[in-house]
Amino acid sequence: MALIVQKFGGTSVGDTDRIHNVANRIKTYYTQGHDLVVVLSAMGKSTDHLVSLAAALSQRPSKREMDMLLSTGEQVSIALMAMALESLGVPAISFTGAQVGIRTNNRHTDARIESIDAERIRASLAQKKVCLVAGFQGVDEEFNITTLGRGGSDTSAVAMAVALGASECEIYTDVDGVYTTDPNKVPEARKVERISYEEMLELARLGAGVLHSRSVEMASKYGVTIHVRSSFNNSKGTLVVSEEQVMEKVLVRGVSLKSDEARISVIDVPDRPGLAADLFSRMAEADINVDMIVQSTGRDDHNTISFTVPQKDLLQARAMVQEWISGLGKGDIEVEEKVAIVSAVGVGMKSHSGVAAKMFQALAETGANIEMISTSEIKLSVVVHPDQGRKALEALHKAFDLGDKNAAAGS
Amino acid sequence: MALIVQKFGGTSVGDTDRIHNVANRIKTYYTQGHDLVVVLSAMGKSTDHLVSLAAALSQRPSKREMDMLLSTGEQVSIALMAMALESLGVPAISFTGAQVGIRTNNRHTDARIESIDAERIRASLAQKKVCLVAGFQGVDEEFNITTLGRGGSDTSAVAMAVALGASECEIYTDVDGVYTTDPNKVPEARKVERISYEEMLELARLGAGVLHSRSVEMASKYGVTIHVRSSFNNSKGTLVVSEEQVMEKVLVRGVSLKSDEARISVIDVPDRPGLAADLFSRMAEADINVDMIVQSTGRDDHNTISFTVPQKDLLQARAMVQEWISGLGKGDIEVEEKVAIVSAVGVGMKSHSGVAAKMFQALAETGANIEMISTSEIKLSVVVHPDQGRKALEALHKAFDLGDKNAAAGS
Repeated sequence: MALIVQKFGGTSVGDTDRIHNVANRIKTYYTQGHDLVVVLSAMGKSTDHLVSLAAALSQRPSKREMDMLLSTGEQVSIALMAMALESLGVPAISFTGAQVGIRTNNRHTDARIESIDAERIRASLAQKKVCLVAGFQGVDEEFNITTLGRGGSDTSAVAMAVALGASECEIYTDVDGVYTTDPNKVPEARKVERISYEEMLELARLGAGVLHSRSVEMASKYGVTIHVRSSFNNSKGTLVVSEEQVMEKVLVRGVSLKSDEARISVIDVPDRPGLAADLFSRMAEADINVDMIVQSTGRDDHNTISFTVPQKDLLQARAMVQEWISGLGKGDIEVEEKVAIVSAVGVGMKSHSGVAAKMFQALAETGANIEMISTSEIKLSVVVHPDQGRKALEALHKAFDLGDKNAAAGS
Repeated sequence: MALIVQKFGGTSVGDTDRIHNVANRIKTYYTQGHDLVVVLSAMGKSTDHLVSLAAALSQRPSKREMDMLLSTGEQVSIALMAMALESLGVPAISFTGAQVGIRTNNRHTDARIESIDAERIRASLAQKKVCLVAGFQGVDEEFNITTLGRGGSDTSAVAMAVALGASECEIYTDVDGVYTTDPNKVPEARKVERISYEEMLELARLGAGVLHSRSVEMASKYGVTIHVRSSFNNSKGTLVVSEEQVMEKVLVRGVSLKSDEARISVIDVPDRPGLAADLFSRMAEADINVDMIVQSTGRDDHNTISFTVPQKDLLQARAMVQEWISGLGKGDIEVEEKVAIVSAVGVGMKSHSGVAAKMFQALAETGANIEMISTSEIKLSVVVHPDQGRKALEALHKAFDLGDKNAAAGS
């Protein structure tokens, strides 16, 4: 008998049949005598429906009102789940973010959790009730409803685990766990048993999309194990743990491919301190998600900065760069409308050299031309031509033995 | 420049086009310099949708969870209206029941408002913001979300008017105002300019359905004028005011017809004190809405009680009565599966005799056979055969000159 914190995503509660299935799963744990706190997302496409209503009324809806609107989705889920559980004979009670004191800052649509008052949950658990908590939402100091950004329910769940002193948080989703790469792209991809917080963060940033980055950061900070697993079967999923707890040491934990990116190069701009900072803070303000940035100083005191942006933001980014160059009085812009980014992630890189060499070798064998390279402590990314992305991904997956469990364990 | 409290019902905000139209109407008042507090219902059929989701998961959903579920409908409306107003350049802010301190008792799905903390509304009005308040909902002492029952947004609006010291509350709906009878049944029906709270209450109980009864009771208690009007045009509607403020004195203000009722007669049960109370409290507990009740003592110490229930509740009511009779050890039951109730309502009845005679005369002329009669201070109801209901209604409407404004004014 333990305290279990679970989170079910939008697909898992996509319709009343699925809600019923999840209720049965919760009942199994309940009848085993566990205390259960269950965080829920909005039903499947309901958030999209609300967003489309907003779009019909306003081109730029206020963020406060978007939060007021979108937070209803999770409220619907928790109420329905409580009903489903009660009809199965399981006592349950639902709570909005406000009702369980999920206090956030006032940054609407992207708020950070500041504190949780677990009092009410504890009281309900003591009455042997399953506690259903609306994910994604909280309230600021003035009781305005805030939301944590898309995927924020993961963070709600980890925060509940932290507040209640639970050592593990189960995140139920529509996949079995975290894979060495996207199984839709590389059939040999295999499920990872354990992955470190750092690796998970890098993979999340690369668009692996299984977990909300902030949930991983929070879990790392407070030492909560995240168990990513499927709500459609009973398989053990992937444990996200500290680096020390990752038994299986490998050079590379996973590889990823991001298509739909564009490259912008700013050529021959003056090499003055603060210039790059200025450019990229403009991008950040416009909510343009810059991924790779590479700078090389050229001849004289001029240099070139290349970076990638999502294709959908290219038009806006290009205009901003052009304006910025005009302001500088010197420089040129070069754009490649479609590129692919292939990355390898693994904490093993910290202590092992040769990963880059192995990667470049593998890519060379596929004939892929590397246009940009960027490295971090546990990640290596390269930009290649979009037609070569898939092949490059497959080559890396193979080169680092990711598809073969036994081989990988030895490295 | 005044403080105006308005309420728009579900049809008025049924889709984004209608929300946009209402926003334009609000803008007109706003640009005239008024302070505006606008109470909204859930969008058109959204409540029905939520109810059907609940029905798919539970046969008897908990009332607390129903409130949690249904209160999201109004929250969606206020957020969307705030966005629509802002896109028209009108500053606006939305509030849930909890956020403006609409404190109720804890009777879920049928809660009563106990207090409103108007502080936050006043502060936002002072900042020249239109305040959008979620109707139908509040919170109990423990911050559980409660709802006021179907139509409860009317009561929310009147309560806001009371809390803010507004002398009038505009209730926008899909009809022009209160009519002498249902215009779909009697084409000669005319709009009433003023009606007293008492008359409105009786008509509401007869299913006139324009206003939530409790909103009228509250308006009466605090002397708030309710202006019932259409959100689809600019016509002046009907003012619901105190008896003294109803200029045009008439014997009968309106007539109504309720079909879809059934009659149950309990025959020859013992004439013991408390028996009727026992029977009807059972009905109340089962949420069966008993309308007319007539009791007549017969021979010896036995008597007959006849009453009407909605047809949809007949099966359940019949079973309850049969069980009740078994418990008494004596008595019989007689059921008429379909009857019609025709009623006349008017404060004029208080001071004028002869209304009953006139009514019976008119009914006799149509050949209608009166099966039951029930009278109150300002209402007279009779039960007739369902085939005779419509004709009886028309006859009464004519007999009391309701279709002819000039004639009515003189009586």
